[in-house]
Amino acid sequence: MEEKERYDVIIVGAGMAGLSAALTLRLHGLKVLWLGTPLLSEKIRRAEKIENYPGLPSVSGEAFAAALRDQAERAGLSVTPQTATGVYAMGGYLSVSTEKESFEGRAVILATGVESVKSAAGEEAFLGRGVSYCATCDGALYRGKTIAVVCTSKEKEGEAAFLASLAAKVYFVPLYKDPSFAAPNVEYVGGMPLKIEGKRRAEKLVFKDRELPVDGIFFLKSARPPAALVGGLKTEGGHVAVGRDMSTNLKGLFAAGDCTGRPYQYAKAAGEGNVAAHAAVEYLRSLG
Amino acid sequence: MEEKERYDVIIVGAGMAGLSAALTLRLHGLKVLWLGTPLLSEKIRRAEKIENYPGLPSVSGEAFAAALRDQAERAGLSVTPQTATGVYAMGGYLSVSTEKESFEGRAVILATGVESVKSAAGEEAFLGRGVSYCATCDGALYRGKTIAVVCTSKEKEGEAAFLASLAAKVYFVPLYKDPSFAAPNVEYVGGMPLKIEGKRRAEKLVFKDRELPVDGIFFLKSARPPAALVGGLKTEGGHVAVGRDMSTNLKGLFAAGDCTGRPYQYAKAAGEGNVAAHAAVEYLRSLG
Repeated sequence: MEEKERYDVIIVGAGMAGLSAALTLRLHGLKVLWLGTPLLSEKIRRAEKIENYPGLPSVSGEAFAAALRDQAERAGLSVTPQTATGVYAMGGYLSVSTEKESFEGRAVILATGVESVKSAAGEEAFLGRGVSYCATCDGALYRGKTIAVVCTSKEKEGEAAFLASLAAKVYFVPLYKDPSFAAPNVEYVGGMPLKIEGKRRAEKLVFKDRELPVDGIFFLKSARPPAALVGGLKTEGGHVAVGRDMSTNLKGLFAAGDCTGRPYQYAKAAGEGNVAAHAAVEYLRSLG
Repeated sequence: MEEKERYDVIIVGAGMAGLSAALTLRLHGLKVLWLGTPLLSEKIRRAEKIENYPGLPSVSGEAFAAALRDQAERAGLSVTPQTATGVYAMGGYLSVSTEKESFEGRAVILATGVESVKSAAGEEAFLGRGVSYCATCDGALYRGKTIAVVCTSKEKEGEAAFLASLAAKVYFVPLYKDPSFAAPNVEYVGGMPLKIEGKRRAEKLVFKDRELPVDGIFFLKSARPPAALVGGLKTEGGHVAVGRDMSTNLKGLFAAGDCTGRPYQYAKAAGEGNVAAHAAVEYLRSLG
């Protein structure tokens, strides 16, 4: 059997917490894989003005993101543009799957952010039974079927288009401004999806004033719920439960940034990324 | 009786964590008192190059401190240049004493940093019984006596001079480079003080190769141990014990930055200052 390359640390997420962890791990000369969207957090760029980040007075989101990208580049850090779809504790190491491949790491830092859009009731309960967060992973299961695609960001329209190329009929539910995606088999639906109903599997997506009968529902989010990403992960109110050193209940798995809870602030995310990196270094040292 | 002005939050310490807390509290429009040395942390200025603070690539300590000072100024934040000598939970509010006066706050954020110089054995045990951290508070007790003054920073030489003006004899133990303080009744002593010995009170400061018979010992440090500053404070290994929201075991008292433990990193301190500020705001809200 082919031996897979094993990283010291895999960072999942390329927002502030992920960057902070990457900068610190680089100083320790470790072998690091950094997964995420290459643009740093969309949220940072969208922020109007940040008034309370020490060191950068009254910085615009655009300027902040540019400074961070520049710093990452200068430090020789680059993001592998893949989205993690699953993290698995393998005993002794962790495996991180993306839509394209899977990677092995002795430690993993989850820095996946938080989805600002509220979940629909039943979203987690029907996960894997008609509900999916991953177009590439599960799209083929819905070839010729009727699906709803709830999309929280313009950058996910490519995945919606992929789904529309497979499904017979797509109810498209954009939860952002100025959606521009269109296809002949796509029908736009306005409003917030409230809940998912069904017996064994998801059968209906329910809105305030209508119900969509579907075979499956895709939630295309910029951040998927941690519990949906990592099996057996302890969460509290949807956030990753962590200790003061950012360790989770799973050995070798650390978390940082918005995914660990409020306040959703850049300074907090930067601090936690730093602490998680130091804890991962300590953990690797303890493995010998 | 005169009613004392009560602050919403008193921040104790003007390093990175204190600044981060101050910036965030300002956004909430609270009545804040910020105590500390006006220059921001001496430690920041001394840092050669900081490579892993997100947003400021490869910044020198001097440039970093200048950016932070500038940001504080622009935000209209100013440090009251007094050093806290004691924090007391009064039931419903906290009282913070300095060498000069005392203040009342509904909440307090401790951001006192950490002293990089190792403590001498017995330092805490003899506190208040011949050991003091505060020249102004306790100097007068040693008029005409023999004292040792252990000084960890050039900026404390003024306090040493004050003590020399009172005491008959001063053993001066500088733990930094190029001390320049001198007076006729002052004798320099090299080396690290290892322990303090005495029966009821401190009587001897012990070095590897000599012992100094003294009536009292002053430790002039840039950061005094949290347990010596706050009565009844829960600590762990000399650090303030805090929860994920930076709350301590004392109601209304939060802590942030190096005083809560490793890693001693600017990003961590900035993050914790932010979190402590948010927690203090929540706490004040809960008081109504």
